[in-house]
Amino acid sequence: MSAPPSTIANDALTYDQAGVKYDQVDPIKLLAQQSAKATAAHVAARGFNEIVASRGESAYVLDIGHSYLASIVECLGTKVLVADAVYRDTGKSFYAAIAQDTIAMAVNDLITVGATPLVVQAYWAAGGSDWFNDRKRAEDLIAGWKAACDVCGVSWGGGETPALAGVVESDTIDLGASCVGLVQPKSRLSLGDNLAPGNAIVLLASSGIHANGVSLARKLAERLPNGYQTDIGNKQTFGEALLAPTTLYVPVTEALAKAGVAVNYTVNITGHGWRKLLRHTSEFTYRIKEIPSVPAVLSFIQHEAKLDNAEAYGTLNMGAGFALFVDAKDAEKTAHIAHQCGIEAWVAGAVETGAKQVIIEPIGVTYSADDLKLR
Amino acid sequence: MSAPPSTIANDALTYDQAGVKYDQVDPIKLLAQQSAKATAAHVAARGFNEIVASRGESAYVLDIGHSYLASIVECLGTKVLVADAVYRDTGKSFYAAIAQDTIAMAVNDLITVGATPLVVQAYWAAGGSDWFNDRKRAEDLIAGWKAACDVCGVSWGGGETPALAGVVESDTIDLGASCVGLVQPKSRLSLGDNLAPGNAIVLLASSGIHANGVSLARKLAERLPNGYQTDIGNKQTFGEALLAPTTLYVPVTEALAKAGVAVNYTVNITGHGWRKLLRHTSEFTYRIKEIPSVPAVLSFIQHEAKLDNAEAYGTLNMGAGFALFVDAKDAEKTAHIAHQCGIEAWVAGAVETGAKQVIIEPIGVTYSADDLKLR
Repeated sequence: MSAPPSTIANDALTYDQAGVKYDQVDPIKLLAQQSAKATAAHVAARGFNEIVASRGESAYVLDIGHSYLASIVECLGTKVLVADAVYRDTGKSFYAAIAQDTIAMAVNDLITVGATPLVVQAYWAAGGSDWFNDRKRAEDLIAGWKAACDVCGVSWGGGETPALAGVVESDTIDLGASCVGLVQPKSRLSLGDNLAPGNAIVLLASSGIHANGVSLARKLAERLPNGYQTDIGNKQTFGEALLAPTTLYVPVTEALAKAGVAVNYTVNITGHGWRKLLRHTSEFTYRIKEIPSVPAVLSFIQHEAKLDNAEAYGTLNMGAGFALFVDAKDAEKTAHIAHQCGIEAWVAGAVETGAKQVIIEPIGVTYSADDLKLR
Repeated sequence: MSAPPSTIANDALTYDQAGVKYDQVDPIKLLAQQSAKATAAHVAARGFNEIVASRGESAYVLDIGHSYLASIVECLGTKVLVADAVYRDTGKSFYAAIAQDTIAMAVNDLITVGATPLVVQAYWAAGGSDWFNDRKRAEDLIAGWKAACDVCGVSWGGGETPALAGVVESDTIDLGASCVGLVQPKSRLSLGDNLAPGNAIVLLASSGIHANGVSLARKLAERLPNGYQTDIGNKQTFGEALLAPTTLYVPVTEALAKAGVAVNYTVNITGHGWRKLLRHTSEFTYRIKEIPSVPAVLSFIQHEAKLDNAEAYGTLNMGAGFALFVDAKDAEKTAHIAHQCGIEAWVAGAVETGAKQVIIEPIGVTYSADDLKLR
């Protein structure tokens, strides 16, 4: 973690200890970003202009005339290893759940620009042909993938199912998804141009850890005498609780568009937890007055990993998976529409003039601009 | 391989021996395809119709009104392991080359439907953060990726660079690319509706093995006393020859469109070698009268792996990486335009009425419909 928001206990788990070294990846990421940026001229020569502001955002946007084209590729990450371990230990398959997680990683990012996701492609790189011989997990993966497409209203266009012995570890699978969609009408583009003081911040509930903070959770499981089989206090095991599938937020953004609610900006709360609320480049203060009850699995991680609130809310979603920034007059309506989609939501706070910071009043935590370096 | 086209020597290498078991993956692929097909209704409800015929083809196509939207995700496969081995043994980096291969896997498939590729996303899943610490290979990967985007005229939109210790083997990287493009004007759609007897078959030269048949080549390297350092007879080592980057065919299809040459159908010659010429669902005979000189690396593989011609041309590209099916009157012009793009091309044969088969006259090999089961 590039900027630990607070002092942490000696035996606390940090992301660095969990093997994720953001600092090491970043200089190369920067070079890749600069090289990528230089290629925009090619499509301009073909008559298509990229939306420059989308390069720092969660999906890439191209102006194709009558609408904007948004595209993305995303990776599930190491959550598959939790599903593998639970499957080995208990025989319970959560491959349908991680299929949903994988699609969620892509679509929940794609909708942040205001796009309607249309096509999802599957990237399933197995450690060997044998992976697909276990029909139960393979069929669950397919069923979960299809069910997530059903929820999001997207067409599963196809994909790749290579057997990559020697590249992917044997008996596991590298799961990714690409997604393409359209911003239509173009007025739905939500890159934050209309984000302004006075906007309400509506938060949508998460279902659990989603797919961020998983390396930390895996490291914690290694420390626990019963590992993933540890009862977290609500009659769920740690492993099963971790594997609650990520909420798909597409129905909410589509329902808002249908209802004519203009969304000024959105943030998918993934890595960096609530620090992600600082994502937009503008200088605003984001004041949060209402926080949700924390999912049991995240309370358990916070307690067992000895994270203080600043560390926990700066790493995990702590019950809020997606943030919508709307005009104050639309705030209650926005939350209501999310409820109608079966997703808990609440008007959590507001955008204010002031230094770039997130103030989470109920827990007395503040993150400043220095706590989030995404670009 | 589902249908070995001929008897092979006892010590010959087959795909099955090389660890690729198509038969095992296929039933699950079929289930995935059926499940995917069922999701098309979602986008239809949103006013977008999929092009049903594209489901059996190399890229997925959706009608978005003024144009068709084509999308795809592709994987490099195990060619990275060849680059890893050569880098370990000699210090020579071919990561720029395999970056081009990865993009080629995506764009060369996308253009088969008549699309202009517009955006490429990078999927680089490393075995750990350390992969990117080796600046030479990381910078080469980025440089090769950008250069391939430059050749194809696409915008590099972004991507994912996760560190996936435990999922991807340490010290290697799982490389993939997603690509999205438009078929515009819609008349460029080349799903084969206009494929007809009398059409000419124009073949475009390959640069070497491209990224198909690599498992076989890797198995062969294990057998050779000097492995990848074996001189293949043209002052190149086996490893370096294998790592010639895949030809990017986008400039040719774009130049043909600009010149007003209608392309009736195309085939990217990848897995299954020249059997891929049977790809279209129609019942036609494809008669080949001119074959290219075979790249040294492929001759070497054929000789060392003791493959007869039927096996070699049914597995490897043998010098032809892409096939264009055009009206006979456009045949020479098509080859000429490819030459102008710096890619060798020749009018190789023609489509005829008759049983579904490929007849390669110069080597006396015939593949029938039973030799290719893609759907």
